[in-house]
Amino acid sequence: MKDNLVITISREFGSGGREIGEKAAKELGIPFYDRAIILKAAENSGLSEDFIETEEQRVTNSMLFNLSTGGMASQNFQFMSDQIYIAQSRAIREYADEGSCVIVGRCADFILRDDVKCLNLFIHADKYFKLNRIMHKYALDQSAAEKMIKESDKKRSRHYRFYTSMEWGNKENYDICINSGKLGIENAVKLIVDAAQNY
Amino acid sequence: MKDNLVITISREFGSGGREIGEKAAKELGIPFYDRAIILKAAENSGLSEDFIETEEQRVTNSMLFNLSTGGMASQNFQFMSDQIYIAQSRAIREYADEGSCVIVGRCADFILRDDVKCLNLFIHADKYFKLNRIMHKYALDQSAAEKMIKESDKKRSRHYRFYTSMEWGNKENYDICINSGKLGIENAVKLIVDAAQNY
Repeated sequence: MKDNLVITISREFGSGGREIGEKAAKELGIPFYDRAIILKAAENSGLSEDFIETEEQRVTNSMLFNLSTGGMASQNFQFMSDQIYIAQSRAIREYADEGSCVIVGRCADFILRDDVKCLNLFIHADKYFKLNRIMHKYALDQSAAEKMIKESDKKRSRHYRFYTSMEWGNKENYDICINSGKLGIENAVKLIVDAAQNY
Repeated sequence: MKDNLVITISREFGSGGREIGEKAAKELGIPFYDRAIILKAAENSGLSEDFIETEEQRVTNSMLFNLSTGGMASQNFQFMSDQIYIAQSRAIREYADEGSCVIVGRCADFILRDDVKCLNLFIHADKYFKLNRIMHKYALDQSAAEKMIKESDKKRSRHYRFYTSMEWGNKENYDICINSGKLGIENAVKLIVDAAQNY
């Protein structure tokens, strides 16, 4: 890479985006941040790792439900959700300041948009590619895997829209969108490595 | 490239997709087909080049208007439009059979979907990148350039939907979507060349 470059990866659940990002980071010899962001956010905020992880899993469905009810639960929940977002944003900025890296999820493309040279990617795939991966990975039948994919993508989409006011997965918001189901995992990795080296 | 590969390029008007495709073809040392498809379609069908070119420009707006009126004009127009589509499809298949190449537009991704190894790309860009290119290229003011971009993309979108029943520009239909406004023309060319060589 010519300069420091942060590669952000947003991805549909089951598309292999996390694996692609991890392999690309390894080939480029740069750090890969996914769970590490939770650890650093915990360190920065005083919230526990377990708490952040649990909240992260349930964040958006509950958030929208609570906001729609408009009660005290909403305010409390929103406060915690915002604390986590702020702590994670700070963690993401700190990692980006340290040099080139790959960051998966957590609105990193939006958080870094004004300050850092980024290559923003979205990884997607067709339904059966994703189903096949999730059924094998979590030993689920098709129906359960379908449900898991649908709910996970809905959460990611709502969380992204809530904090960025942009549409998750809209190609206009990314530099490159890659269909990992058509290209395959290894070709997607190569594409990112080549793009990062040229950029 | 490992095998014969057809690179199809769909693109928003003003995104530089045609230029990117032409440069990528040159770097890969393979033929680039855009206007050549009109010539070959003319040769195959007995229709004149001028006629195909003129019809191609106005194809979809009139087509949809005529279809909605349901009169004889509709049937005649539809007949001519279909003849051109069939002649161009045959030309595209003949070029694809000859070996690796880059084909711009004309539903080539759809036409070749079952028979040929393709890398299907969509090139898009932000409004101001496209406006700037079109204003300079055609010496237009902003308002005229905006109108030209809007009408051209609407035609492309309608034509694609009419003949493929798929949504033009929907990332799910392509292997890679490239934001030429963010990456720049030269990086987009490199990305395609690298992807083609790996694929």
